[in-house]
Amino acid sequence: MSISGGIVAYADSQSETAAPAELNQNEFKKKRVVVLGTGWAGTSFLKDLDVSSYDVQLVSPRNYFAFTPLLPSVTCGTVEARSISEPVRNIIKKRNGEIQFYEAECVKIDAANNKVFCKSHFENNMIGSEDFSLEYDYLVVALGAQVNTFNTPGVMENCHFLKELEDAQKLRRSVIDCFEKASIPGLTEEERRTNLHFVVVGGGPTGVEFAAELHDFIREDLVNIYPMVKDLVKITLIQSGDHILNMFDERISTFAEQKFQRDCIDVQTGCRVVCVSDKEITMKVKSKGEVTSIPHGLVVWSTGISTRPVVKDFMEQIGQANRRVLATNEWLRVKGCENVYALGDCATIDQRKIMDDIASIFKAADKDNSGTLTVQEFQDVVDDILVRYPQLEIYLKNKHLRDVKDLLKDPEGKDIKEVDIEGFKLALSQVDSQAKSLPATAQVAAQQGAYLSRCFNRREHCKDNPEGPQRFVGGGRHSFAPFRYKHLGQFAPLGGEQAAAELPGDWVSIGRSTQWLWYSVYASKQVSWRTRVLLVSDWTRRFIFGRDSSRI
Amino acid sequence: MSISGGIVAYADSQSETAAPAELNQNEFKKKRVVVLGTGWAGTSFLKDLDVSSYDVQLVSPRNYFAFTPLLPSVTCGTVEARSISEPVRNIIKKRNGEIQFYEAECVKIDAANNKVFCKSHFENNMIGSEDFSLEYDYLVVALGAQVNTFNTPGVMENCHFLKELEDAQKLRRSVIDCFEKASIPGLTEEERRTNLHFVVVGGGPTGVEFAAELHDFIREDLVNIYPMVKDLVKITLIQSGDHILNMFDERISTFAEQKFQRDCIDVQTGCRVVCVSDKEITMKVKSKGEVTSIPHGLVVWSTGISTRPVVKDFMEQIGQANRRVLATNEWLRVKGCENVYALGDCATIDQRKIMDDIASIFKAADKDNSGTLTVQEFQDVVDDILVRYPQLEIYLKNKHLRDVKDLLKDPEGKDIKEVDIEGFKLALSQVDSQAKSLPATAQVAAQQGAYLSRCFNRREHCKDNPEGPQRFVGGGRHSFAPFRYKHLGQFAPLGGEQAAAELPGDWVSIGRSTQWLWYSVYASKQVSWRTRVLLVSDWTRRFIFGRDSSRI
Repeated sequence: MSISGGIVAYADSQSETAAPAELNQNEFKKKRVVVLGTGWAGTSFLKDLDVSSYDVQLVSPRNYFAFTPLLPSVTCGTVEARSISEPVRNIIKKRNGEIQFYEAECVKIDAANNKVFCKSHFENNMIGSEDFSLEYDYLVVALGAQVNTFNTPGVMENCHFLKELEDAQKLRRSVIDCFEKASIPGLTEEERRTNLHFVVVGGGPTGVEFAAELHDFIREDLVNIYPMVKDLVKITLIQSGDHILNMFDERISTFAEQKFQRDCIDVQTGCRVVCVSDKEITMKVKSKGEVTSIPHGLVVWSTGISTRPVVKDFMEQIGQANRRVLATNEWLRVKGCENVYALGDCATIDQRKIMDDIASIFKAADKDNSGTLTVQEFQDVVDDILVRYPQLEIYLKNKHLRDVKDLLKDPEGKDIKEVDIEGFKLALSQVDSQAKSLPATAQVAAQQGAYLSRCFNRREHCKDNPEGPQRFVGGGRHSFAPFRYKHLGQFAPLGGEQAAAELPGDWVSIGRSTQWLWYSVYASKQVSWRTRVLLVSDWTRRFIFGRDSSRI
Repeated sequence: MSISGGIVAYADSQSETAAPAELNQNEFKKKRVVVLGTGWAGTSFLKDLDVSSYDVQLVSPRNYFAFTPLLPSVTCGTVEARSISEPVRNIIKKRNGEIQFYEAECVKIDAANNKVFCKSHFENNMIGSEDFSLEYDYLVVALGAQVNTFNTPGVMENCHFLKELEDAQKLRRSVIDCFEKASIPGLTEEERRTNLHFVVVGGGPTGVEFAAELHDFIREDLVNIYPMVKDLVKITLIQSGDHILNMFDERISTFAEQKFQRDCIDVQTGCRVVCVSDKEITMKVKSKGEVTSIPHGLVVWSTGISTRPVVKDFMEQIGQANRRVLATNEWLRVKGCENVYALGDCATIDQRKIMDDIASIFKAADKDNSGTLTVQEFQDVVDDILVRYPQLEIYLKNKHLRDVKDLLKDPEGKDIKEVDIEGFKLALSQVDSQAKSLPATAQVAAQQGAYLSRCFNRREHCKDNPEGPQRFVGGGRHSFAPFRYKHLGQFAPLGGEQAAAELPGDWVSIGRSTQWLWYSVYASKQVSWRTRVLLVSDWTRRFIFGRDSSRI
């Protein structure tokens, strides 16, 4: 470990007097792993990592893990920030100091020298140097993403965001501020209305959930304590697409729009925001092309994510400069680096196309080198193909084909016994269109972290006993199966104790019972018993006492 | 009410169509009361105020009431900020909109024109004007005080304070920061030690309690998650006097010093801080006169209070420019103003001296105008004297005199039957030395608020039926009895489930049972059931899960 300083030096000097047996043990040098980020991906990677073979150093500007799906609940005080955050040091403490955590920001990844440069964020306010570097044998990049303003002028300066816990806390104070502003004497009714005009940009799950939370907060709590201004509140939701929640099933999207209409939340679809000032938001109605400005009291910007500068810089170093997002292979290894892994929102998996390898697959499958593939020969390799190219499974499902051998049909739709390379290409030619990139969700990041730690833990074992699919290009087998995302469903809380959920197997569930499902799933998914208890007591407190409106 | 704006204008226009009977009722014009501040004094004044005869407007930059005695607990996360704060609008909501609250700061009191000028603190960030003024018939000043730096250079810039809830929250983050700073790689042991050197200036209850809380936080929680740096922590308490907690009984003071010594908290008494920089604190040892500087990681300044600028300005207007603190009479009315009251930390009661009125008292008591006072004549007025001049009671108690007539003795100590004016003066000549100003505590402020609201509620009734003592100067009776503080005791939590308490009747209680008394008193004193439940659940959570170390 490269950390210096008195205490560690002391620990080192102790080992000099150790017995020879221990010395030999020390000589087995652990690989140094540096992990960047304490979000879903980083935390889930560390949770089950076997530290007996790795020296782990963790760097993040946040010394806690935040349960981000509950951020919209924090904005209105339904849940406290502390109830959804767990100190990183608590999570890693069971590993008895084997994992070092540094509260700092990674400012540069030096891929050529296997080094990261970090800076603690206590600017000019600490004794000693705030810059340091760490060397790694393996680097795990789990830095997440930043908000995407699409370079819209004024967004950074005048909007609220919902990425970090601090954002949610600030937004909570600002919502209360709007009500206090509207209560100041001497304002015209128009001015009061403007102070109480809440605009949400982005009709995705976060934006919709915030709008719903805000509506509940106002209807259930604020009307009682701000009776004078309660009728002046307005919530507007601006969505560039034609529907809100358009990544969900249509039934959910329609239900949400109808519920918002009943709740008097003004949903404006097909609008693109052109600029935001401190007093007005300007947008263009796509269909008509006309530009309108509306005064606002507060704008929440929740439209998507973009790559962080430090990741952008890293991409330039490794020849990914022309990509938008850092690309990894299906095993989460960064393309162009041997020993760097990336997971979570900061990266996407660049799924290998089946058509790129079609000749090799054919060759590997054609065991008798006959130049044609029999159904039997195809079926012998199909499991490996399904693991290596998951788009095939989606293709089969969408085409309602029960069996892969149904692919091999002649133009009249009759089963055929053999295909040549051209027939094989034709049969699989449409498969790659089904390759989908994974959504930037907590669920994906958590599964990737767990997957990668399993790979790290079994690295030595799987070198000799590969457990992955056949390697069509190059021969042999892959050490590991590539990462496969298992979609466990997604929730969209809509306020008023109503929620919608997309469950595995195309199930859709909407209504009050779904809200209770939401409560139980989110409670069970907490990282610690502490946050679980706090979360449930927050919900209980809200039912009994309502939400707190103190501006703290 | 002077508030304009659409909604209120609408309410006014409705009353135009009201029945004649209602019109007459409206003609009985309510007195306009403006209350400045939502601390202990202001909140307790409003709690029981009868709004049927007053139009009340409340102005404060904080829209919540904070239970300040628990601020030190917030600094280390033993208690959450939200658990000790209650929205002002919740407190006043039962009065059905009869009390208007404005989140703004009073920037000027215009005593001559019965007006206050206010400014909301949403600088340039609100729609409409942020300045407004309010007219009053009665003004209640409960603005509290600000920290007193004694003009020590660098204190404002480089110290933490413990006056507001935000201070406590900021301090909490900074304590965690110090531990994270000390864990950054590449620091020398000396640098790590400095980052973990916590200095508390001021040996009063707040400073002592913070030092104790911090010690517990480190010993109970932080040692487990910062094992690398746990042995480098140091807490220093700097006190200008010879003992810490010197306003308490000597037994408590000694116990606290011994406990801190066992806990390795370095108590430096007899030291005056000369200046504070971002890295060092410089102090002068009073006895030796030598000046030393010590490096620090964090300084908490908790040495006393001083007058706010807006109160200072007000004092200049009313001829109190040469005083340090705003003076009121014993009925809490500001001296030099007819219709302004001041209570809590922003004012002191200027107790009328008995010797100033001695001739009038003698004259009023000497009913038969004989030029001498019989014991009987003295006893007839003594109850009124005891109410009007509470220093007499303290004098009697300290002199161990069981009865006031014991005052009237001849030089040989024998009872006498009559005194003339000179003898009367002599008997009472030492009494005024016992007049004590009240401490700036929550208890005093709360009692003053309750007292004043009772006076306001009974104002009309007591005009005709005075319930106060005889008016020795001028004749007749005072409408009300002057304010009398009832000391219910004071706690000094010392950490490690130990507390000391000074209870009424010179009782002193120290130890574990006192800590439990502290828990129950503080839980019972909460303003709402909500904060009570939250507070108890915070304490429970701490016992089970420890304190949270997330930097949020």
